[in-house]
Amino acid sequence: MTSTFQATAVVGAGAVGSFFGAMLARSGHPVTLIGRAPHMQAIASHGLQLHWAGGVETVRLGATTELDAVRDADLVLFCVKSTDTESVARQIAPLLKRDALVLSLQNGVDNAAAIARQIRQDVVPAVVYVATAMPEPGVVKHFGRGDLVIGPLDAAAVQDGAQDGAQDASQDAAQDAARDGELLQRLQAVARLFDAAGVPVRVSPDVMAELWRKLMVNCAYNAISALSQLPYGRMAALPEIVDVQQAVVREVVAVAQAEGQHLALDAALQAMHDIARAMPAQLSSTAQDIARGKPTEIDHLNGYVARRGAALGIPAPVNQTLHALVKLLETARTAA
Amino acid sequence: MTSTFQATAVVGAGAVGSFFGAMLARSGHPVTLIGRAPHMQAIASHGLQLHWAGGVETVRLGATTELDAVRDADLVLFCVKSTDTESVARQIAPLLKRDALVLSLQNGVDNAAAIARQIRQDVVPAVVYVATAMPEPGVVKHFGRGDLVIGPLDAAAVQDGAQDGAQDASQDAAQDAARDGELLQRLQAVARLFDAAGVPVRVSPDVMAELWRKLMVNCAYNAISALSQLPYGRMAALPEIVDVQQAVVREVVAVAQAEGQHLALDAALQAMHDIARAMPAQLSSTAQDIARGKPTEIDHLNGYVARRGAALGIPAPVNQTLHALVKLLETARTAA
Repeated sequence: MTSTFQATAVVGAGAVGSFFGAMLARSGHPVTLIGRAPHMQAIASHGLQLHWAGGVETVRLGATTELDAVRDADLVLFCVKSTDTESVARQIAPLLKRDALVLSLQNGVDNAAAIARQIRQDVVPAVVYVATAMPEPGVVKHFGRGDLVIGPLDAAAVQDGAQDGAQDASQDAAQDAARDGELLQRLQAVARLFDAAGVPVRVSPDVMAELWRKLMVNCAYNAISALSQLPYGRMAALPEIVDVQQAVVREVVAVAQAEGQHLALDAALQAMHDIARAMPAQLSSTAQDIARGKPTEIDHLNGYVARRGAALGIPAPVNQTLHALVKLLETARTAA
Repeated sequence: MTSTFQATAVVGAGAVGSFFGAMLARSGHPVTLIGRAPHMQAIASHGLQLHWAGGVETVRLGATTELDAVRDADLVLFCVKSTDTESVARQIAPLLKRDALVLSLQNGVDNAAAIARQIRQDVVPAVVYVATAMPEPGVVKHFGRGDLVIGPLDAAAVQDGAQDGAQDASQDAAQDAARDGELLQRLQAVARLFDAAGVPVRVSPDVMAELWRKLMVNCAYNAISALSQLPYGRMAALPEIVDVQQAVVREVVAVAQAEGQHLALDAALQAMHDIARAMPAQLSSTAQDIARGKPTEIDHLNGYVARRGAALGIPAPVNQTLHALVKLLETARTAA
């Protein structure tokens, strides 16, 4: 295994993937974006227009619609929508370099495990903190932050869909330690690569808890914003909605704790409240998907919490209700 | 007290009130509708056009926008939206005949008690089973049924907002029995009056339980239809939504039982399922209110169950969530 990376591919290069790919490319690292035709064609013709730090920069980097391009990469930024994770992971499985590292830059807590069930290479979950948008093909706008938290995936999560947080006892402990040490070196190499590109990366042993915290916030905002087509500030202005959001957070924390993740309820509630103040004009990605008639990630947000809650015997009626209502909107928009 | 009625006023004459008023009027009983100007003006000019039993009939009856017209009535059909119950009851209180009987033909289980807190006259809840619409001012269409269940209001419900189903022990038992007997005679007089007009009326000692059963169905359908703007058949086609509806029913039945009402869960679930099959194309009244930017009755449907549940220590998170979401849609439509 190498502990430096020669070439990166971004699979599912929308706004988020294109941003991080462009940051690596402008630091001199070879990057190929793999995404939809209009965006890829615009980049191939004119480069990627990156609105960033108050200016606009043209970033030249590879752009293709063909998954085959992952063959050349030893680092893969996996950025597809959660709904496509399994099928895309299955498609790239036979194409990946033997020692490639796959970094999942996705919402939800189950994506890295879902990828790992399809491929033999190392898969590392990343918590993504960035506000970006793609106003038109070939153009990516950066609004805020742009940092990552990465860390090892729970072995148990891969084996059976995150049944609990217990350690995998089936392997020899010494072998485990060696593998853990090797993975840690690779994570530090990822951090060095991004750091050199101006993207802060924190390596955390507790990345899963951090993913759960982000999931918790998404569960409290995404569905309600989608159902009302209202931004976070308008939601927070109605006390009945804040009560519902608090109920969502309590359910997510209870399910996370049953999964062995250490989320504190008070901190979670505070983090939830802070979001509406920090981003009052934000419409959730789920709201944008519904408005555009596109499938949402709700099965991996409130739907995931409801399913895991049911499996673990933790009641999650509010998450279940929000999930069902967004599913109903999806069918209304697609089959009307 | 008289046990026959000389004149009826319909307060809040929309589609439902105009239908029952017209049925009484065409049987020869004096009726005055009190409602909004366009509908009243059309009726005053051309009579009420009643689409009924495959034909159209012109029914002549009084029509005014003035609440003052309740002065002449010994029977008042109270048909305003639940949101207006308290203020309209307070307005008619000084106008009502001393021995008038007020029949609440409204959704929800708390309207008759709310009226009774404002006036000294007898108030009787009615469960209304009718499908009607008012396609334009002066025109009422009848689609199905058209019968009522009436019965005595719980004394306890009036005193303190339906704290429980216990009997009021503060009055002398003999006096109670005399009052009960007198009220029963008046209910039978109401039944005779409507029966003579072709409107079946059942007098039931258990009218409150029947109101709760109707509330349960409304709680399971109205909010979800409003949030999705979809009819009942489309809702029933999504298993996740049916799960949510079942959760709603379980919560309503638990709250009703804590109120001392005898609702059976299995029968309630069956009744809930039957509605989608019976009315697959129906959009809820709440959905229509939201679509028209009008205030809804949600505070008296899921909102009532959530409030009573909270007061009684019965969890009702799904009703609470649906209530909050519809409130959010109301603010979105009215303050956008």
